[in-house]
Amino acid sequence: SVDTTPITATLFPGDGIGPEIADSVKQVFRAADVPIEWEEHYVGTEVDPRTQSFLTWESLESVRRNRVGLKGPMATPIGKGHRSLNLTLRKELNLYANVRPCYSLPGYKTRYDNVDLITIRENTEGEYSGLEHQVVRGVVESLKIITRQASLRVAEYAFHYAKAHGRERVSAIHKANIMQKTDGLFLKCCREVAEKYPEIKYEEVVIDNCCMMLVKNPALFDVLVMPNLYGDIISDLCAGLIGGLGLTPSCNIGEGGIALAEAVHGSAPDIAGKNLANPTALMLSAVTMLRHLELHGKADRIQNAILNTIAEGKYRTADLGGTSTTTDFTKAIIDHL
Amino acid sequence: SVDTTPITATLFPGDGIGPEIADSVKQVFRAADVPIEWEEHYVGTEVDPRTQSFLTWESLESVRRNRVGLKGPMATPIGKGHRSLNLTLRKELNLYANVRPCYSLPGYKTRYDNVDLITIRENTEGEYSGLEHQVVRGVVESLKIITRQASLRVAEYAFHYAKAHGRERVSAIHKANIMQKTDGLFLKCCREVAEKYPEIKYEEVVIDNCCMMLVKNPALFDVLVMPNLYGDIISDLCAGLIGGLGLTPSCNIGEGGIALAEAVHGSAPDIAGKNLANPTALMLSAVTMLRHLELHGKADRIQNAILNTIAEGKYRTADLGGTSTTTDFTKAIIDHL
Ligand SMILES: CC(C)[C@H](C(=O)O)[C@@H](O)C(=O)O
Ligand SMILES: CC(C)[C@H](C(=O)O)[C@@H](O)C(=O)O
Repeated sequence: SVDTTPITATLFPGDGIGPEIADSVKQVFRAADVPIEWEEHYVGTEVDPRTQSFLTWESLESVRRNRVGLKGPMATPIGKGHRSLNLTLRKELNLYANVRPCYSLPGYKTRYDNVDLITIRENTEGEYSGLEHQVVRGVVESLKIITRQASLRVAEYAFHYAKAHGRERVSAIHKANIMQKTDGLFLKCCREVAEKYPEIKYEEVVIDNCCMMLVKNPALFDVLVMPNLYGDIISDLCAGLIGGLGLTPSCNIGEGGIALAEAVHGSAPDIAGKNLANPTALMLSAVTMLRHLELHGKADRIQNAILNTIAEGKYRTADLGGTSTTTDFTKAIIDHL
Repeated sequence: SVDTTPITATLFPGDGIGPEIADSVKQVFRAADVPIEWEEHYVGTEVDPRTQSFLTWESLESVRRNRVGLKGPMATPIGKGHRSLNLTLRKELNLYANVRPCYSLPGYKTRYDNVDLITIRENTEGEYSGLEHQVVRGVVESLKIITRQASLRVAEYAFHYAKAHGRERVSAIHKANIMQKTDGLFLKCCREVAEKYPEIKYEEVVIDNCCMMLVKNPALFDVLVMPNLYGDIISDLCAGLIGGLGLTPSCNIGEGGIALAEAVHGSAPDIAGKNLANPTALMLSAVTMLRHLELHGKADRIQNAILNTIAEGKYRTADLGGTSTTTDFTKAIIDHL
């Protein structure tokens, strides 16, 4: 009775440990009979003039066509005359919201229990405008741009997400006491959207205070929405509460319903090819992709298998204090399916 | 044999709980025979055109003359046509470095033990330029300004501080992978200064990663130096690790050797006048002022009395889970002198 026409999804295995952890995801998806066919794209070896980066035009076209994808870590090659891979993806695909669920993994102890936070980051503008210049020697400036359009768009997504996931509250994080016009506009847009969701509580929290409260008591927050740089900072802080970027999924939402899930940790070139990498973040990101596709049954099954494997504690990779290889950890997840 | 000519210091008791906690400091200083005479200045009741704020010109002149002061919390009155009190002080007195020592208080348990961090924040420019404008309707921008002069100045202060206090390492916190010109200039200045201090280790850490590492393991850091907004964020995060802004001292360093110590918590109007406020942050700030004056004997004596009172646990104010009044807590500190 279930529609099993396969869905085509773009896969960027990425660099360093990327191909190994992408392979884990493919194995687990196969074992769980997920109706997905991967269209793999690697980072190119030279700059593609159409993307001004090492990303090929074809790979971007693939995401645009499939509207869903998964991305491993990508290290931007050093040198001039090209753009960062991550930023190119965000700009070219208009990935306007970066969603990072952050929850304590049962059995993996940190200083914090029962963390359950969602950070939703505006992902296209703000401090990431790329507009900088030298005024005179020794004086440089950079521009932070906030637009009504992008602020409304990410606020809409945050409230939509909160409602769809049964969340109670959205906190808008800002520094409008200092940046009254830019962050002020962001807040104004959040307030406008909040009015359309009377069932969701809304509050505004200054970023410095937010960081202090997060480390004191993360249970004070639920869904957090914020401009680009604050999102960059706070989502990493939240990841730290539960153990780090190796454990936290991330999904980018773009115009036209695009979802590009990604592991936000680095490509760890030092352990690449050694069968030591932890595929958890990429696999949990793949789960957020399944949820975006409304494949909740498969998503639950895989997520539970990952969480149970980590909770059991028998198979853990080195970054979690264990001695398992990527292969053994992946096999353990498949056994838990 | 010790010079006991009194030193005149400016005191801004501030608003809300300010006068009560300032009174505690005065009592403790008197009991410890600190050779300081206070010159008290209150926030004015109308805007002083010479400062464009509710701060009087005379109060600024007092700090300029005494070169040392202590400041309680000040709530900026709401309304247009005047500047924030805190920002006016920073700009008018050129308070270029904000220093916040952050250490675990023995006996006051949080999730973290043995925190011992110093954040040094550039305090005059960056994201706090106040330069913002609307480009077109729905598009606003704000300018972040980084100068070689201010960056060198705060970097110099950080390395000088590290050396004078026997610290091992200075970490420059930045987001130069995105803001290559502004944060890039800040880093360049830090590197230049680092070369003059070969005995101090130097490293550069991206702000998102820094926040993640701070919550995972604050012992990874020692002295941190950074642009204005990052300092605002990270110093509050660090305060959260040890219990909050009610416990962390702060001192602003200005051109010409000015030191204005301040409690950075709010004025808590809800409990003002009720003898419930915790004077710890202001008192520890006053201690940093004594250290600036090289009155280390008095500083040690007072600091130990505060820490021992908190460690003993018999007298604690409500914010620390106790039931003591401000008066009783202050008396306990005096008994511990
Ligand atoms: C690598 C870097 C450009 C990126 C960012 O700042 O957005 C990263 O920190 C992230 O959060 O994805
Ligand atoms: C009150 C506010 C303007 C101030 C700041 O942002 O600098 C405060 O957060 C601080 O850290 O002193």
